Formats: sequence, structure tokens, C-alpha cells
Amino acid sequence: MLKNSEETLQSLTLSEKDAQYIWHPFTPLQGAVTPVIISSAKGCWLYTAEDRAVLDAISSWWVNIHGHSHPYIAEKIAAQAKTLEHVIFAGFSHPPAIHLAERLLKVLPENQDKIFYSDNGSTAVEVAIKMAFQYWYNKGEQRKKIIAIEGAYHGDTFGAMAVGDRGAFTAPFHSFLFDVDFIPFPTGDNDEAILNRFSELLATEDVAAFIFEPLLQGSAGMRTYEAPLLNKLIKLAQKHQTLCIADEVMTGFYRTGKFFATDYVEASPDIFCLSKGLTGGTMALGVTSCSAAVVEAYDAAEWTKTFFHGHSFTANPIACTTALASLDLLQEESCLQNIRFIEQRHQRFADELRQNNKIKSVRNLGTMLAFELKNEESTTYFNKARNSIYSYFMDQNILLRPLGNVIYILPPYVINEEELSTIYEAIHNFIKAV
Amino acid sequence: MLKNSEETLQSLTLSEKDAQYIWHPFTPLQGAVTPVIISSAKGCWLYTAEDRAVLDAISSWWVNIHGHSHPYIAEKIAAQAKTLEHVIFAGFSHPPAIHLAERLLKVLPENQDKIFYSDNGSTAVEVAIKMAFQYWYNKGEQRKKIIAIEGAYHGDTFGAMAVGDRGAFTAPFHSFLFDVDFIPFPTGDNDEAILNRFSELLATEDVAAFIFEPLLQGSAGMRTYEAPLLNKLIKLAQKHQTLCIADEVMTGFYRTGKFFATDYVEASPDIFCLSKGLTGGTMALGVTSCSAAVVEAYDAAEWTKTFFHGHSFTANPIACTTALASLDLLQEESCLQNIRFIEQRHQRFADELRQNNKIKSVRNLGTMLAFELKNEESTTYFNKARNSIYSYFMDQNILLRPLGNVIYILPPYVINEEELSTIYEAIHNFIKAV
Repeated sequence: MLKNSEETLQSLTLSEKDAQYIWHPFTPLQGAVTPVIISSAKGCWLYTAEDRAVLDAISSWWVNIHGHSHPYIAEKIAAQAKTLEHVIFAGFSHPPAIHLAERLLKVLPENQDKIFYSDNGSTAVEVAIKMAFQYWYNKGEQRKKIIAIEGAYHGDTFGAMAVGDRGAFTAPFHSFLFDVDFIPFPTGDNDEAILNRFSELLATEDVAAFIFEPLLQGSAGMRTYEAPLLNKLIKLAQKHQTLCIADEVMTGFYRTGKFFATDYVEASPDIFCLSKGLTGGTMALGVTSCSAAVVEAYDAAEWTKTFFHGHSFTANPIACTTALASLDLLQEESCLQNIRFIEQRHQRFADELRQNNKIKSVRNLGTMLAFELKNEESTTYFNKARNSIYSYFMDQNILLRPLGNVIYILPPYVINEEELSTIYEAIHNFIKAV
Repeated sequence: MLKNSEETLQSLTLSEKDAQYIWHPFTPLQGAVTPVIISSAKGCWLYTAEDRAVLDAISSWWVNIHGHSHPYIAEKIAAQAKTLEHVIFAGFSHPPAIHLAERLLKVLPENQDKIFYSDNGSTAVEVAIKMAFQYWYNKGEQRKKIIAIEGAYHGDTFGAMAVGDRGAFTAPFHSFLFDVDFIPFPTGDNDEAILNRFSELLATEDVAAFIFEPLLQGSAGMRTYEAPLLNKLIKLAQKHQTLCIADEVMTGFYRTGKFFATDYVEASPDIFCLSKGLTGGTMALGVTSCSAAVVEAYDAAEWTKTFFHGHSFTANPIACTTALASLDLLQEESCLQNIRFIEQRHQRFADELRQNNKIKSVRNLGTMLAFELKNEESTTYFNKARNSIYSYFMDQNILLRPLGNVIYILPPYVINEEELSTIYEAIHNFIKAV
């Protein structure tokens, strides 16, 4: 294919350049909507250069908890970029990484002992899986299995794909993924079957780790399950010394109403994965924390017991500073008040939706509200309703990105009454129209 | 393990907190040097709060090309953080991502057609591998093999580990990595053996991709090899429709003297992986570019042909803006002049080192200079000389991070005559002393 001449390129619009140069994530190369080009953003609103304003009802892929371009975060970033933008994190350290580790360990369960930094949710999960495998390796006992939950999504790198559901997302790569055992998704009426299967798998004493999205599976369609069962699973696993990995990448930082989703559960997982809300949705950063018991298996001078994992930008000072600023905002009284306000408004709206016979299932956990639209197809990401629902709301300048026929709201915590009502009303009208 | 009481924690120094809370990358938990805590940095210098100044002779793990806390980059970051910190990159786009894609495609070979963003070098490689496997899947022909080069390092996530050398770094994970074929590292006298082995592997018509660090393997000990052989390998692979993946994560952005290391080679790889110098070493960002032929295999509306890969912070606007600012600086006449100056000084110093009988091998490519110290152990990352060499130079406030008994200099491009001389002189003295 010949490239356009320099002259033609100059005259292309930004949209045309986007189409020509960029391959967007999770987007078919034909038939997808033309991307809306955003030049600025503030609070819950995304703005184009032509002053079109789109209400970001899903926190830009579940990350943006304090609204966009928050002035407090922006100010901290500006100061850090001028002072120390980056430094190698082997043999060196810096205050933002140390302060962030300290503050995260204060909000994580008591058993969490150390913080390992990486760059995003996928790498936080890769680190967790590697930590678990090498934990056994260092103890001189190879445990080769991981248990995950059907429908799981933990990221798109090979290790993260391996512990995720085998479906259309991963089909071209199945033969390159290591084996993982899956237990059924808890539907409320299959606890016994799950516990039996889980116990069978654990009894092999070959299970290095159990990984899960606590209480809420995101990509699978914002599916919720109950804390008591998760509590039992963690306790059962820990009886067999199987390490429990809580993937709180999406659920952390009050998304489910508590600081972490596992705060609803009495048992404490051994390893946590954090990202998304960690930096207030500002930029990429990943964290994997682990218990003292995990650390102990590595606590040696030998190279053979060293955890050989790292990324060039591990604990990038700007990203760590951003995360500290986000934690500052989270600790403000007004933030928690608004989270409670969203919860209450969501609950009321959920109750209304439950009365509607066009709706199959309504899920509400903290600031997350999701419901399934009844239609002839089954509930999957690929349900054809998806594209028309997306366009319907975008025509009204509301960004809702349904997972198949599942519509969900996952707003920034700064959203106000009027903005929430705009979303609810649009949904009401949409349901009336279908 | 009981956590310290709140009171004790308050009184801990930053160093003590670092030891207690943080697990550093590639660092044994015992016996490693106490991390130096850096509170600011400027140009080639890292500063502690006590005004100790350390000369960063390795660009903080090969990333920092314009020196630290560059005011131009800092200013661009500050402006972007206030305007648009982030927006979902599916269904949306933004000027920094579009401009960056355009500018990268201008400097990449003519055959490169589209840019896929991710968050670091490992993910850029994971994207490349997945692109290659699914390329064949979409064409209805499963090719299941990848060829890599012995000694390769492409990152620490499972896919990136799989295409890397099987060694001490990856030992605990070998049974979880997909099979990859390795050809010997080119030593200058084994071309024929390499080409024969390579041809045999390609003849199976089961090789999806060939991945390589062009001309310079970093982690393996800053080992260089010749362009004509790489040219032959790429051409041979492309004859068999095997996709060639150039991992330019470390070599890109003039590190080897040309914009990309593959610019020394006539043939054009099909896929490129970029990171490290991409943002001027400021923060995490990854790019995978690919040819029109690769794009074509995905150019459909069907879900089954869609590339289902993405990270929440894909094409983060702040990171993209930083990369644009870094490209601005790279295009300044003074930057290229200083790169040429470093090359010349390195060459002169390399010639001096070649006269020294305590030194086994001297490698020089662009702004990279490396040499092996003769000692009784073999040349590996784990060579015991490593720790004493590191400490020797740190005692003189120079950050050199030997790979075993291989000492290398990989400076920021802003380094001046005096700073370079300081490093050379310290190395001279070191060699005299051993």
C-alpha cells in the first residue's frame, strides 16, 4: 500500500488521520463508530474542539474516579515533572514511591507487607501470578495449577489471559496459554457445586494460587456475587496453603462502596492487584501487594530466590505522585459523602428498574449499577444490541459502553444530582423506546 | 508478622520505610545495597535530599535520553494534565495520540502503517506476538512457532518471557511458557550455522514470527552483532511470510546512532516495538507499529477477526504528549550534534580500552559503549564481580550498573565533555586497580 504524499497528509482532518494511523483497542477495523476526538475534559465531561460535551458515565473504562483533569492532581503532576520525573528503581528509591507504599499498606488488610510496582493492571496480575509460582519454587515444591472463576477477565498479556475465561477474546491464543482450572461463576444457587469442585481441585495440593475479581466481574457483564461464598473460598484455599490473589484492579478505591471489595469479606487474601482508580484514572500505574508469608519465601540473598521481574518505569515518580494526590482526594469528607450519595441514588434507580418487565436482572454494588436488557439473543459481549445501545446514548452525548446487552453506569465520584438524573432519564427513555 | 505500631512508623526514616514497604525489581531481598533515595534530578544528575549528586551514566535503565526533569517536557506535561489527563481510547481519540502516531510513522520505515498503543516495553512485545499469532489465525492458517535469538530479553510478562532466553531469570516459570525456537547468537564466525538452522525452522512453514533485538542485545550483556546478517535473516523470514518483529524498545530513538537500529539494515521488519526512549524516559508508554499487510488480515467487521487487546490507559494523553515533546527535542540540531559527539568520544575511549590486556571485549554502537572485564568466572549476569563493580562506582557517585562482568555506559544525550570524562577516568582508575 502506497502511503499518501506529504501534501495530502497535511490536509487530512484529525479524524482522517486517526483512521489512517491508529489501531484502537477492542475495536474491529471495519464497521466501528468513528472515534470522537476529545480535546479537553473537566469533571464528568469530555469536550471536542467543536464544544460537543459528552457525559462520561463509565469513568473512561472504569478508571476516572475524581473527574477529568482535576486541578489538584494536575498541580501535583506539574511539580513532580519539574523535580524528579523518573529514576531507576533498582538500587534507588524516591519519596513518592515510599509514601505511596506506606499509604496503600495502611488501607490494605493488616496481613499485607510489601508493595511491588508495575505499569498497569495486566502487569500487576502477571506479577501476582509469577510471585505465586515462584513462592512454591523457592520453597522447593512446584505447584503448577491456578484456579480462576468462569467469566474472569484479568488482562490481555499472556499470563493474564491464561487466568481469564477462554472465550472469543482469547480464541486465537488458546494453545499458547498455560492450563488453568475454572470453577463456575457463583449464581446464588450453585454454592455447593462450586465448593465441591473447589475442594476437589485443592485436594490435589498442586494449586499455587486462586485468583478472582472480588464480588464483581467487570468484563463478563458487571456480574456480582456474594461475600459469604468468597469468604469460604478464600478460607478453604488458605487451608491448603493456596495463595489467594484478589484482582482489585477495577473494584478498588471505593468502586464497590468500600475501599476494597474484599473489605466485605472477613478473610484476607494473600496478594492484591491494583491499578485503574489507583492514579485517580490519570495515568498508568500498577501495584501488586503481598503478605509477609509470601515475602518470606523470597527473603534470601541467593540469585535463585530473587524475583526477576521489573519494568523500566517501575514506580515512576510522576505516576506515584498522581496516586498520592488521588488518595488525598479520596480522604476528603466530600468525596466519601458523594460516594454515599451515588450509592443511594443508584439503589433507588435500581428499584425502579426492577419493576420494569423489559429488564432481566439488575445489579447494584456501591457506585456500580448494571442491568440486562431482555432480548432474543443470549447475554454475551457480542450481543448485537450492543452497537445500537452505544450509538443511542452517544447521540444524546452520554458515554455508556454496554457489555453486549448489559448496560452499566460506573460514574466518576464527583458526579452530581443533575448529571446522574440525566443518565437515569436517558436510560428510562431508552427502555421505553425498545 | 506484627506490623509496627503507628508511633514507630512515624519515626522511621525514608530509608527504613523503603526497606519495610517496598519490594524492588530485580533485587534480592537480602544482601542488596541500600537504595539511595533520590529527591530530585536535573540533566545527568540524581540528587538526594542531602545534596549527594550521582551521575546517571546508564540513563536510568536505558530510558532517559534528554536528561532528567527536562523543563520543556515538564511544561508540556503540566499543560496536558490541566487540559485532558485521560480518556477511554475505544470509540474516542485525542490529538496527542493522533499526532504521535503520525510522527512515529514518519520516522518508521515506509512499510509501517498503523500504531497500537500500550503501557510499556513488555506490553508492546505482547501486542506484537499476539498480532503475529492472530494474523495467521485470521488468515485461517495456524502458525504456532516463533523464532528468537539466544540471549534474548523482551520483557517479564509471560508472553515476553516466552520469547526470551530460558535462563536464571525465567527458571521458576519455564513450564508455563509456550515453546519458542532459538537460533544461536551471531558471534561473527557462526553465520552459516545460524542461517542453516534458521532456514530449517522456516521450512516447516509453521513459524508465525521472528523476534529480535536489532544489532544489540541489552540484558544479555550489551552484545552487538552485524547488520548484514540481520538483513539476511529478515529477508529469509519474509520469503516464508514469517513476520519479523523488531524489538526496538532499547535501541530506538538514536541509542545506536541511527533513529532505529534497523535503519542500519536494508530490509524492513513487519512489526516494531517501542518504549523506553519513546517518552524521553519520562514515564511509561508502549507502541507497537505494524505493516499494511498485517493490518489487512484484521481489516474486517467480524468480531472473530478483531484484535481484542487493550489496557485502560491505552494512549494516555499525558504520556503521548510527553513522547511528542521528546520527539521535538530529538529533532533539535543540538541533540543530534551531541549524539555525534558522544559517538566520537566513545569510539576514542573504546580504542583506548582495546589496548588494555585486562579487558576481553569492547563493544561500541552509537551512544552505547560496553566492555568485558577478564576474570576467572564466565561472563554472565550473575558474575560475582558485579556487586563490587557497582559499589566501586557508586562510591564515586557514578551510576554504572554492570551486567555481571560487563560494564557499559549508556548516557543521556545531554551529557557533556566533562561528565563523560569523569566516567571514562573513573573506569580507567578502576581497571588499573583490579
